[in-house]
Amino acid sequence: MSKYARPNVQNMQGYSWGEQPLDTETIKLNTNENPYPPSPAVDAALANLGAAALRVYPQPTADGLRDKLAKLHGCARNNIVVTNGGDEALRLALTTFVNPGGHFGMAEPSYSLYPVLAAIHDAQVVRVELEADWQLPESCADIWNRASVELACLVNPHAPSGTLTDAEDLRRVAAAMNGVLLIDEAYVNFVDPQRAYDATPLIEQDNVLILRTFSKGYGLAGLRLGYLLGHADLITTIIDKTRDSYNIDHISQVLGTAAIGDQAYARETWAQVRDARRLLAAQLGQLGLFSVPSETNFLLVDVIEQPVTAERLFQRLKGAGILVRHFSAPRLQDKLRVTVGTPAENHRLIATLTDLLA
Amino acid sequence: MSKYARPNVQNMQGYSWGEQPLDTETIKLNTNENPYPPSPAVDAALANLGAAALRVYPQPTADGLRDKLAKLHGCARNNIVVTNGGDEALRLALTTFVNPGGHFGMAEPSYSLYPVLAAIHDAQVVRVELEADWQLPESCADIWNRASVELACLVNPHAPSGTLTDAEDLRRVAAAMNGVLLIDEAYVNFVDPQRAYDATPLIEQDNVLILRTFSKGYGLAGLRLGYLLGHADLITTIIDKTRDSYNIDHISQVLGTAAIGDQAYARETWAQVRDARRLLAAQLGQLGLFSVPSETNFLLVDVIEQPVTAERLFQRLKGAGILVRHFSAPRLQDKLRVTVGTPAENHRLIATLTDLLA
Repeated sequence: MSKYARPNVQNMQGYSWGEQPLDTETIKLNTNENPYPPSPAVDAALANLGAAALRVYPQPTADGLRDKLAKLHGCARNNIVVTNGGDEALRLALTTFVNPGGHFGMAEPSYSLYPVLAAIHDAQVVRVELEADWQLPESCADIWNRASVELACLVNPHAPSGTLTDAEDLRRVAAAMNGVLLIDEAYVNFVDPQRAYDATPLIEQDNVLILRTFSKGYGLAGLRLGYLLGHADLITTIIDKTRDSYNIDHISQVLGTAAIGDQAYARETWAQVRDARRLLAAQLGQLGLFSVPSETNFLLVDVIEQPVTAERLFQRLKGAGILVRHFSAPRLQDKLRVTVGTPAENHRLIATLTDLLA
Repeated sequence: MSKYARPNVQNMQGYSWGEQPLDTETIKLNTNENPYPPSPAVDAALANLGAAALRVYPQPTADGLRDKLAKLHGCARNNIVVTNGGDEALRLALTTFVNPGGHFGMAEPSYSLYPVLAAIHDAQVVRVELEADWQLPESCADIWNRASVELACLVNPHAPSGTLTDAEDLRRVAAAMNGVLLIDEAYVNFVDPQRAYDATPLIEQDNVLILRTFSKGYGLAGLRLGYLLGHADLITTIIDKTRDSYNIDHISQVLGTAAIGDQAYARETWAQVRDARRLLAAQLGQLGLFSVPSETNFLLVDVIEQPVTAERLFQRLKGAGILVRHFSAPRLQDKLRVTVGTPAENHRLIATLTDLLA
């Protein structure tokens, strides 16, 4: 730790990322990647790329990709800013709309990166405890307004529980808030279409941002590509002022465009994940490992009335070559977050758990 | 402009990037790209990449690439953090070591992004005017210390003049400074080896960071890849705390490793740029367009005692399909910054200027 670092940086803890093993034998159900690779269209676009195109700077504002995204979402180019994964989108929202020393709102529990980003920026975190069923309390916007929250992040569907809050509820929160509401939709592609969830019309309000990522839905976690949808006033502030110039490299612009272009393939992987999720939840239930209904590509599994604790089960699965995620935070200590894998991976998980819990 | 943006963001001007035309007819001598494409080894690495590898998150800290860079520079992995281009490195240094409301030092004139990044972070800029020959005044560290500067950036070789400050002079500045000194070596690969310039031993001091980029020397501006060398205390603070998690995508890690691995190719392009620089400076001089000796891949050309102003000449070159850069800042208004191109590009520039100035 350097003595030259800002005091808030010296005093904070960094983000703790899930393990990324380099071997190919380990079954990785710990960081919520899509079990399916990106579309063949992405492979084709990659094969057509030559390194010579990398000699010059990329298009500074990723306009080609923004236009494709605008068409997909039925909005304008100026409602979209492309980012290096969802993480850059979160950081940009914080550094653009929250004053250092100011207040940042979040639900508890949720994505563990939020308070880390707030600490880097020296913002105070105002946590709203979720209800027992992981839903937002009615008083949420009031609590944030009383604390002068300048930006709040809500991940929906919720992580790590997988539950979905209705868009109408989010609209009420945003309308009541004095600051900006960022709806982190990292997992939205896996929501059952029968839920008819769609929060994108909320960007007509001047204080709503919606985060999307290619990491989960499009199987491109390794590419680091995400974007924010929002009111043009919010978005152009980021594009013209606070974003790193040339923040999106040429290859990401090309591959992202290819991925977005193959909606049929993406939708098929989402449907397969939903099917596998249903089956996995049922099979885990038969082992006494229950989870609330999930609209994401993971399940938050209760490890209660079992011969082992959640942490010990996490370790034993790891010993058997299967990585899942355990959090030591309150309300999560007796649970495991399990990414939905391919049918073969899920089968091996169930077989291993059957042995371990016997 | 959103009313939700921080006051400093509302009041600042964003960075003004050079034009990036999409056509291939324009001769681009305006943003200091390498005139030569990246190594064939980069092409081969790109051809070997499959999109399936992008399904999972990248190695979070780019350790494979860091190890190659450590070997190249004769330092340890913990002396290196890889960044999304040099721009991310600059932002990270600012947000890690400068308190909002605190002070950031720079020389005037220099890279026009520095004050923009300071404004985003709400830091006050303390400018030190360069001498007539673009060298640092002796009082530089004193001026910054009196203003409680927490971080200062010096680009060396200097942009936009192309002149080089000796490493020994930088060592003295760093030793006298109370804050961190970042030496921005974006153009260092083009320095004549006979100058025997090497500032990397300075990272043994606990307050020195050196910025490098793949954008210029390795012909990879489109990839957005750079890195900081520095004392392990400075570097690990950034890696463990303030960097975006997974900031470097998988493809950049692979292609960067390939580029670093082919030093012979890179050195050959640098030698060719130096040869072309010498010839171009001489030919421009014959047209009465003089420049100070440059150790970079650009020339800062005086447009004085000519039938046109520098700004008008910039416009006329643009009309003829040749982009160069004109800055309206003090001391630069009567100059043009011209990137050294391929021999064919430089030839067309000279032919066009001969016509325009006839």
